[in-house]
Amino acid sequence: MERFEVNILGCGSAVSTTRHYLSSQVVNLREKLFMIDCGEGTQLRFRAMKLKFQRLNHIFISHLHGDHCFGLPGLISTLSMLGRTADLHIYAQADAEKIFRPVLDYFCKELSYKVIFHIYNPKKNELIFEDRTLKVSTIPLNHRTPCAGFLFEEMPKSPHIIREMIDFYQVPVSRINAIKNGADFVTPDGTVIANRIFTRPAEPPHRYAYCLDTAYYEKIIPIIEGVDLLYHEATFSHADIVRAKETYHSSARQAAQIAKAAHVKKLVIAHFSARITDESILLNEAREVFPDTILANEGLVVEVSG
Amino acid sequence: MERFEVNILGCGSAVSTTRHYLSSQVVNLREKLFMIDCGEGTQLRFRAMKLKFQRLNHIFISHLHGDHCFGLPGLISTLSMLGRTADLHIYAQADAEKIFRPVLDYFCKELSYKVIFHIYNPKKNELIFEDRTLKVSTIPLNHRTPCAGFLFEEMPKSPHIIREMIDFYQVPVSRINAIKNGADFVTPDGTVIANRIFTRPAEPPHRYAYCLDTAYYEKIIPIIEGVDLLYHEATFSHADIVRAKETYHSSARQAAQIAKAAHVKKLVIAHFSARITDESILLNEAREVFPDTILANEGLVVEVSG
Repeated sequence: MERFEVNILGCGSAVSTTRHYLSSQVVNLREKLFMIDCGEGTQLRFRAMKLKFQRLNHIFISHLHGDHCFGLPGLISTLSMLGRTADLHIYAQADAEKIFRPVLDYFCKELSYKVIFHIYNPKKNELIFEDRTLKVSTIPLNHRTPCAGFLFEEMPKSPHIIREMIDFYQVPVSRINAIKNGADFVTPDGTVIANRIFTRPAEPPHRYAYCLDTAYYEKIIPIIEGVDLLYHEATFSHADIVRAKETYHSSARQAAQIAKAAHVKKLVIAHFSARITDESILLNEAREVFPDTILANEGLVVEVSG
Repeated sequence: MERFEVNILGCGSAVSTTRHYLSSQVVNLREKLFMIDCGEGTQLRFRAMKLKFQRLNHIFISHLHGDHCFGLPGLISTLSMLGRTADLHIYAQADAEKIFRPVLDYFCKELSYKVIFHIYNPKKNELIFEDRTLKVSTIPLNHRTPCAGFLFEEMPKSPHIIREMIDFYQVPVSRINAIKNGADFVTPDGTVIANRIFTRPAEPPHRYAYCLDTAYYEKIIPIIEGVDLLYHEATFSHADIVRAKETYHSSARQAAQIAKAAHVKKLVIAHFSARITDESILLNEAREVFPDTILANEGLVVEVSG
């Protein structure tokens, strides 16, 4: 199984506490690291989790509240002091560059690499990143300020080749790529051997959805339908539903309702209010609706495909 | 003894490590808290040390390198979320407001209190703060960028009144304040009783000096002469003196030389390079020159007068 996992660096909400760090996590897909959100202290948490800075090239910022992005200047500055040369790509809303570029220009005058801001529109569900193994698209959320979640999808993989059948039909090496891509094989005497004889379907691509900060928002359900792992905020317990609504956050029960309606395989709840001292209340509340729920925690690594 | 102590929140140098947090400390003088420097993560360290946010009203920033001030926006933002109403005073160089005000205006649109920047000139040794118990002045340092240390001096205290002598001479209560302030006492029959009969000198005011970031710089010696506690950077061991000079930092030996020449009572060395894995080398090097040296560490509380 190829690695596809989520490293939780911080899962507290806006007001810092001694129990949780501010929002940040790192998606590891086959040793390439993708950061989502970068609250204050992220660079320290990144080191503490023994992740490798040189494998990090992309940072996705869900929205421009300080607890999701105040760690950017320090991280960018540290990467430069470590001598980084590769471009660093930041995916964020339009104001991000306007706000952070002057800070970087002042404090990191001799940056050893380029920081490239990519603007996305948080109101649209659109593809914002793609490479050979992964695509990332935005999930419009419902928060006080424009905010997007992110859907990480593995690219479909080539089917597995059945070595024995290749040998049996004496398929030349030059034809194997075509077969991987779905072609049938024609023997020297003109017989057509169907592609399925030579291949076994690859594992279906795995999918991961990150959804915070947001009120309960049913419009995300079709976008995240059937994901392997959903990371959804549960800032409050349902007893505080009035406060959750006022602040455009979700209760643990609501996170679970979304998970159930979207037929996801596993749910991680996170972004706990500083007022919550006993998170098991949130966990139990969510599990009543969606049993396969776990609590986020600093240092936890969750397999997307596991 | 009235409390006068230094709480070390972070004592690493610019590149964050898993061993140290970034620069910040809190001077506690009789339960009023004064922060010096505010590297990323300071608000988290502040909480971890169980300090009280409502007792913090003044922040002194030594210079505008990110590792000394990237914690400001997060701290300011958290104080607002906690409902602070008292003004917060920040003492920094002229550019600080230019850089941070747009960040605060964007991220903390509804700040519950006022942030007031006070500009100081890092090239001058001048008084920048004064109240009934404390004065703070700048100590010009020698770094790549303009940088000032800070001298914290208790105000002289009134002498102690010797109760027995007051009673013996039947001094009226209305005269006691004058005697505290140095007046003699004249008895009803015209005899002058010298002030020293009624008073015992108070403890001399204690003094604390914070000096980083800086190269070895003898000009600070007369300013910090005889302080009770000197917190001086020792970024490198003397074996790395070439690198120390290039980067305008000090070696542990140099920190101790300054301490010795200035006849300070105690030295704390800090701001260790990320390259240093064994800090006992720095400690031993400093103690060869100035025995009463200790290593800074996160969580350490050092009494100024102790």
